[in-house]
Amino acid sequence: MMTAEEYIQSLRDLRPRRVYAFGEKIEDCVDHPLIRPSINCCAMTYKLAEMPEYRELMVTSSSFTGKPVNRFCHLHQSTADLVNKVKMQRLCGSMTGACFQRCVGMDALNAVFSTTYEIDARHGTEYHRRFVEFVKEWQEKDWTVDGAMTDPKGNRGLAPHAQKDPDMFLRVVERREDGIVVRGAKMHQTGALNSHQILVMPTQTMRAEDRDYAVAFSVPADDPSILYIYGRQASDTRKLEASKVDVGNANYGGQEVIIIFEDTFVPYKNVYMLGEIDFTGMLVERFAGYHRQSYGGCKVGNGDVLIGASQTAAECNGCAKASHIKDKIIEMIHLNETLFSCGIACSCEGSPTRAGNYQIDMLLANVCKQNVTRLPYEIARLAQDIAGGLMVTMPSDADFTSDEVGEWCRKLMVGDARYSVEDRQRILRLIEAMTIGSVAVGYLTESMHGAGSPQAQRIMIGRQANMEAKKALARRLCGIDPDGLF
Amino acid sequence: MMTAEEYIQSLRDLRPRRVYAFGEKIEDCVDHPLIRPSINCCAMTYKLAEMPEYRELMVTSSSFTGKPVNRFCHLHQSTADLVNKVKMQRLCGSMTGACFQRCVGMDALNAVFSTTYEIDARHGTEYHRRFVEFVKEWQEKDWTVDGAMTDPKGNRGLAPHAQKDPDMFLRVVERREDGIVVRGAKMHQTGALNSHQILVMPTQTMRAEDRDYAVAFSVPADDPSILYIYGRQASDTRKLEASKVDVGNANYGGQEVIIIFEDTFVPYKNVYMLGEIDFTGMLVERFAGYHRQSYGGCKVGNGDVLIGASQTAAECNGCAKASHIKDKIIEMIHLNETLFSCGIACSCEGSPTRAGNYQIDMLLANVCKQNVTRLPYEIARLAQDIAGGLMVTMPSDADFTSDEVGEWCRKLMVGDARYSVEDRQRILRLIEAMTIGSVAVGYLTESMHGAGSPQAQRIMIGRQANMEAKKALARRLCGIDPDGLF
Amino acid sequence: MMTAEEYIQSLRDLRPRRVYAFGEKIEDCVDHPLIRPSINCCAMTYKLAEMPEYRELMVTSSSFTGKPVNRFCHLHQSTADLVNKVKMQRLCGSMTGACFQRCVGMDALNAVFSTTYEIDARHGTEYHRRFVEFVKEWQEKDWTVDGAMTDPKGNRGLAPHAQKDPDMFLRVVERREDGIVVRGAKMHQTGALNSHQILVMPTQTMRAEDRDYAVAFSVPADDPSILYIYGRQASDTRKLEASKVDVGNANYGGQEVIIIFEDTFVPYKNVYMLGEIDFTGMLVERFAGYHRQSYGGCKVGNGDVLIGASQTAAECNGCAKASHIKDKIIEMIHLNETLFSCGIACSCEGSPTRAGNYQIDMLLANVCKQNVTRLPYEIARLAQDIAGGLMVTMPSDADFTSDEVGEWCRKLMVGDARYSVEDRQRILRLIEAMTIGSVAVGYLTESMHGAGSPQAQRIMIGRQANMEAKKALARRLCGIDPDGLF
Amino acid sequence: MMTAEEYIQSLRDLRPRRVYAFGEKIEDCVDHPLIRPSINCCAMTYKLAEMPEYRELMVTSSSFTGKPVNRFCHLHQSTADLVNKVKMQRLCGSMTGACFQRCVGMDALNAVFSTTYEIDARHGTEYHRRFVEFVKEWQEKDWTVDGAMTDPKGNRGLAPHAQKDPDMFLRVVERREDGIVVRGAKMHQTGALNSHQILVMPTQTMRAEDRDYAVAFSVPADDPSILYIYGRQASDTRKLEASKVDVGNANYGGQEVIIIFEDTFVPYKNVYMLGEIDFTGMLVERFAGYHRQSYGGCKVGNGDVLIGASQTAAECNGCAKASHIKDKIIEMIHLNETLFSCGIACSCEGSPTRAGNYQIDMLLANVCKQNVTRLPYEIARLAQDIAGGLMVTMPSDADFTSDEVGEWCRKLMVGDARYSVEDRQRILRLIEAMTIGSVAVGYLTESMHGAGSPQAQRIMIGRQANMEAKKALARRLCGIDPDGLF
Repeated sequence: MMTAEEYIQSLRDLRPRRVYAFGEKIEDCVDHPLIRPSINCCAMTYKLAEMPEYRELMVTSSSFTGKPVNRFCHLHQSTADLVNKVKMQRLCGSMTGACFQRCVGMDALNAVFSTTYEIDARHGTEYHRRFVEFVKEWQEKDWTVDGAMTDPKGNRGLAPHAQKDPDMFLRVVERREDGIVVRGAKMHQTGALNSHQILVMPTQTMRAEDRDYAVAFSVPADDPSILYIYGRQASDTRKLEASKVDVGNANYGGQEVIIIFEDTFVPYKNVYMLGEIDFTGMLVERFAGYHRQSYGGCKVGNGDVLIGASQTAAECNGCAKASHIKDKIIEMIHLNETLFSCGIACSCEGSPTRAGNYQIDMLLANVCKQNVTRLPYEIARLAQDIAGGLMVTMPSDADFTSDEVGEWCRKLMVGDARYSVEDRQRILRLIEAMTIGSVAVGYLTESMHGAGSPQAQRIMIGRQANMEAKKALARRLCGIDPDGLF
Repeated sequence: MMTAEEYIQSLRDLRPRRVYAFGEKIEDCVDHPLIRPSINCCAMTYKLAEMPEYRELMVTSSSFTGKPVNRFCHLHQSTADLVNKVKMQRLCGSMTGACFQRCVGMDALNAVFSTTYEIDARHGTEYHRRFVEFVKEWQEKDWTVDGAMTDPKGNRGLAPHAQKDPDMFLRVVERREDGIVVRGAKMHQTGALNSHQILVMPTQTMRAEDRDYAVAFSVPADDPSILYIYGRQASDTRKLEASKVDVGNANYGGQEVIIIFEDTFVPYKNVYMLGEIDFTGMLVERFAGYHRQSYGGCKVGNGDVLIGASQTAAECNGCAKASHIKDKIIEMIHLNETLFSCGIACSCEGSPTRAGNYQIDMLLANVCKQNVTRLPYEIARLAQDIAGGLMVTMPSDADFTSDEVGEWCRKLMVGDARYSVEDRQRILRLIEAMTIGSVAVGYLTESMHGAGSPQAQRIMIGRQANMEAKKALARRLCGIDPDGLF
Repeated sequence: MMTAEEYIQSLRDLRPRRVYAFGEKIEDCVDHPLIRPSINCCAMTYKLAEMPEYRELMVTSSSFTGKPVNRFCHLHQSTADLVNKVKMQRLCGSMTGACFQRCVGMDALNAVFSTTYEIDARHGTEYHRRFVEFVKEWQEKDWTVDGAMTDPKGNRGLAPHAQKDPDMFLRVVERREDGIVVRGAKMHQTGALNSHQILVMPTQTMRAEDRDYAVAFSVPADDPSILYIYGRQASDTRKLEASKVDVGNANYGGQEVIIIFEDTFVPYKNVYMLGEIDFTGMLVERFAGYHRQSYGGCKVGNGDVLIGASQTAAECNGCAKASHIKDKIIEMIHLNETLFSCGIACSCEGSPTRAGNYQIDMLLANVCKQNVTRLPYEIARLAQDIAGGLMVTMPSDADFTSDEVGEWCRKLMVGDARYSVEDRQRILRLIEAMTIGSVAVGYLTESMHGAGSPQAQRIMIGRQANMEAKKALARRLCGIDPDGLF
Repeated sequence: MMTAEEYIQSLRDLRPRRVYAFGEKIEDCVDHPLIRPSINCCAMTYKLAEMPEYRELMVTSSSFTGKPVNRFCHLHQSTADLVNKVKMQRLCGSMTGACFQRCVGMDALNAVFSTTYEIDARHGTEYHRRFVEFVKEWQEKDWTVDGAMTDPKGNRGLAPHAQKDPDMFLRVVERREDGIVVRGAKMHQTGALNSHQILVMPTQTMRAEDRDYAVAFSVPADDPSILYIYGRQASDTRKLEASKVDVGNANYGGQEVIIIFEDTFVPYKNVYMLGEIDFTGMLVERFAGYHRQSYGGCKVGNGDVLIGASQTAAECNGCAKASHIKDKIIEMIHLNETLFSCGIACSCEGSPTRAGNYQIDMLLANVCKQNVTRLPYEIARLAQDIAGGLMVTMPSDADFTSDEVGEWCRKLMVGDARYSVEDRQRILRLIEAMTIGSVAVGYLTESMHGAGSPQAQRIMIGRQANMEAKKALARRLCGIDPDGLF
């Protein structure tokens, strides 16, 4: 297993990548101030595994070798593993206050593992064996892997093959003797630049004509054929400013990237699906299911930070004992723990796949994510209520340190004597970042759309609930079909 | 273990009890149409244990004897037991569509068991041993036991001893050589008349002057000193009507009773706390905690019925395929499963007490109950939306069967051809009963106040959350206390 | 104008009517304890007009004669009239705590008045002149008129003429020289038995084949061809009990009736639409619009009662000063006044019809009603929170006055000394009635479905909002279509 | 009246001001790209008055001279004026999609006018006459005036005079023969730099020891003693970028400034309160009341933009016809029009002050603002749902125009063919700006705290509602105090 420092160095050791942001090529991804906070976030998943107090949660043993592995590289072997996954995510979310990005790989790992097993069972293919080899290396090298699913999609009303531009979904453009060549892009790729490998999956259920789009494979993140374009976020350029006060969450942050495969060659040993359209739905559903569970952990950890920040802000403002403030803090805790309960419940109710690893309860995982599309917004609203208007009217830190106006700034912003003005600035900037700044991208908008937009969960909830059984209950009780028991 | 029939007979075999309803003495509780539905509800907990398909969930083995016991008489031995408790409650709630009443005993059982253990450890008393003897008989005889906690309380601003009327809290009025004499009352006693024994606990944390009020004991439900007064419910007299259509849930229902102890003698072997004020808080908190968990099961089962009824009503009305109806059904499922998730999570996160049985995660159990004070109301609102106005403007069943107007009634109420008019009547009456009728007492108002009113949970949530840890997280991230990790 | 006593006598003076309830013929509607509370409710609209302090609001002058008329018989002449309508309804709702039933006539009056004007203008008919004659008599005699719209509808997927049973919508079955003969029924008729006349309107937009169903007319309520079947409500039989305590709202209540026209003859002078399918939509929309406004008054008045009851219950319970109770009361007021704001706003933004009377702003009236389908449910939930569980576990009043158990009941229910136990019973029974009893029919379910179910308003809201204008605003600001102003 | 161009020139014509932002002195406020959008916003209030289609709403006549005045300089003469104020604000909010800043002056104008009248009546002072003179010039010159109320406040638990630093509230530091000298600051000053005059009011009810803090006056905005420090906002530096695409709302924006009075001299003719502590509460309450009304207009106009943007985004994404999208748009409209209804209702229910101008209904104005602290957050959440995740993962516009990666960006972002990729970028950036960017400061956080934080409204709501009347209603109906009417 890597230390956090080794992890960061391992990114430096990658072959040069083609990365663009703000229209310019980024030569040094690792130390670029725009990107580094997101690397620190991912590095936290290594750092915590080093720390004795968190080791039990962060480190488990490989189901292949029995050797210690970071839980982010683990195939869940029990419902306890699923529960621990959620707790680990809450921990990481609370230690970074942001998106730590390594879940997509873990969720892809478990989804591809069980799905390839079932493909092979039906089609006599050997994807599962290939994938197991890949996983062994993954665990051995303690990689961060980007699980890449979402395509650009173009016109939503048309199937992949029917799009005007065939590249709107990633596809096989050439089948060679030793491998395949793929072209296309994956959007919204959380942490792509912080990964060693990219594990690509199809984005939706495919039909017969879309066979070329039914492809899953892995590829090194530094493959020269890959082009990365960095997504921008609210207030992102504060990360480039001299002072680190206004950025709110100074050292950590999320990362969203477009990955473009410009005719990337993939040897067959790294291909895990090639045309088996009958398993595209299963793979998507399983990956989405795991990832909907994940949000019941990471966003709860973010919520812990925001609750703590709100309480601190109330203390800075001198009003933490007002009954309405206490009640709002309780409400924030209540909502946050409701999300956690959903994350725990879908894990506790998990069950083994045919391949042997465990998957979550699908109904409850969708219920979990559906709540994640709502409750963080209310938590954020309450945080803004508690923080007060100063959060959005406060001058920049450059004013606070200015020779000309700094004294006035520092004088006027004095609140409760237990906190310095700079403390107050910092805590308000943190709440700002989490509710209308760069961290809100992860805490709010990603809570909405990550792992599928709300309507996707609603469709699954409607499908997973056994309505006929519920109707039968009602019919019995009202006497349409009397039970005759008493 | 008793069969459901034996259970009902066992109630008939009790000594004559003094029971009043509508100002009159009820001679035959068991077969009285007002009461019988509530007995059927409780009997369901026996019946399901007889049915092979539910046996695994309903029956477990005694931690004392290893013999099979109904889970309602069980001391939880693991988090799996706690999870199964919630699932059993969902099952019972879905099979009765009402409150099946036997949880209060189970929750008191587990709370008194662990608390007496700790009292004895500190005070050198022998309550736990006594209680174990009682529990063995309880399990052996497969009793239903009423866990009785809530006192009348009089003026909420005054302690028990300071009340104008000393009987506003139940207390010891005499200490004899062989036992104690108690006087007072317990309010809101769910299922009291359907119980074989009453297990009394103090209602709140007591102070030094309230030592006589710090008393816990058990007593046979047919002790002649006990007086019962039956509570009334919305639409309760429909149970007395000739037709069973309008009652909605024809065979099942809840029961709320006042129990009055008119100088009841209790031998010391059945006394489990006598003046140990320092453990009153623990006992109340533990009982409340278990009971707050319980609602994450039973009310979810009720919700299953209401969802099934709403879907059926939509089909009767011919509009089940409208997108807004489907969306409302999905929302009902989502909310209901959110409650279930909370019930499961506080169970899964349980831990052993010093006495060895398991208790729930206190924070999550309070979060669970807090959601129960809200979400069923929204589920009920959506059910009314789907049901349509006919639910409250429909004539009585006597009109539907009348020679003079029955034909018109039956003609005008025709909806979708797959359902008869009587089916439609029945399903609408079920929704009416669950949302503004007698079952709403259990599904709504009891969801609000059972196991403590909402504010009680909020106080616990505020107390259980580790705010200092959350503040520390925020301070690290905004740089007040930088972590120095990266 | 009639006094309240004259009004009640005027109902006694009607020809014998065929009225059924609970399967039996009701000979004396006026003094029947099941029905009388609803008559008192309607009588309140007369009584308040007699009282000097309310006269200015209740009484205005006829637009035909200038003579004083009860506002319930008035054609709105200005937006001030529309606003006063809402205030009058709030007053009546607060004085009865229930549905006072006279609005449907007022709303039909204004809708038929303006629609007949437009029919005549297009078709050269004389409906408007006929209707004006009818209105003059209505105002002169100070009638209560039932505006009757909703048909049974049968299979919702089929047009009236395509129904298996042609009577699922009311229709003309014969055209005679002097008038028409109609057959069919109107469902959910609020206050039908308390009316002097019935003003029938079609229930939906009709197409060419449904010409016989496009009919509007008035008929005396005591026409012998009419059959009435009384709808039942939660807890309705409490009105028949000896004690008036448990009924909650002792003297007032709502009334829902099915009206069946068994080949009723209507002379042409009372026919206001006969086959003009092109105006069915307008008539329905206008009536619904006025009625959606109405709920922004009457339900607010009901809300006033429930807020006052909750505050009183909190005082009885001795916890009115707790900060969470005060906050819940404020929330109830906030929600209630939000509804009132919607009622006022759609009135204030009204405009004249071509016929000269005023109609409400259609978008805002639908927004008003949509809120009415939600907020009263939350107000009711909060009321239950404040009331406490005793509301649903309290014995019947017969127990409180019983020789055997009355003393115990009265002793145990003592709360704050400023209130007697009977006060406490009464106020809790009022909250029970309004939230899960007979008054909840009006306060909740009718709020949901009266004047159209929620989805009906959503369709109208979508249709009324000028989306193209809103899109243009967005396009300008984001620079797709720059405004070039600065 | 000034044209928009004259207005902008008039700001250029002001004496040099001391303005700081990002720690540096801003020499040219008017043309600075950070500030200019906020000037354009305020200029819109002049521009619309020039446009014939809006003139009727924007221009009215002075109550002093009868000459045309911009409504922003108007003393409301009727409830129609109050209603038109709200409509004008909705218009301005919809034309700028941001905060146009000129309301604070208008609201201060009306509050100071009526309060000074009452001060003079009680104290025999001449503030009202002085203020009238000021208002005449204000109207004549068509000024924008900053109504300045909120002080830094320091320790919230201490009165002004008891603060450790006496400058935490603005106060009189010297009384001269010809005027007073004041020192202190006003925080959160919306549009201060875009104003010609500053009208200062005390921030809260003052007690005897705080007499020096009970001061109201006006002063030219370019008084050399005044120091301005510019507040920063989420994503504010996007305004400084070369491309105007990413800023979302390219030409308009809000402005929050700290105003510091460094011993500013004010001649008595511009002093409107000096020590009359008994009127501080009235002035605060009236200003706050008007300003709480205002939000029922401006934020609704912003909402119109966000709804239009969401609909456009759905069309770009190709999913505008999905039933769940249509339903979410309807919900956004519903919530937005609910706010508008509250703005209209508190206006329609206004009444004359003793000074003759009109003020709003205080209860309903507070209800209005309370809803503004909630509903825009839900509207914003729905906008994010509809927009999709691309809103926060999309590359910067510099990438879209880059030689190296622009082609890929433009290719991958193609959606519905009716919209260009740049259109899609722009509309998503607008939604981003309004929900987690610089415009969210105004649309969300300012909706929360502007005109007082939510708890301030709750206190007023509790105080304004006539609880005794409501209790009496409940007592009558449940029979505690029977009405004896029927």
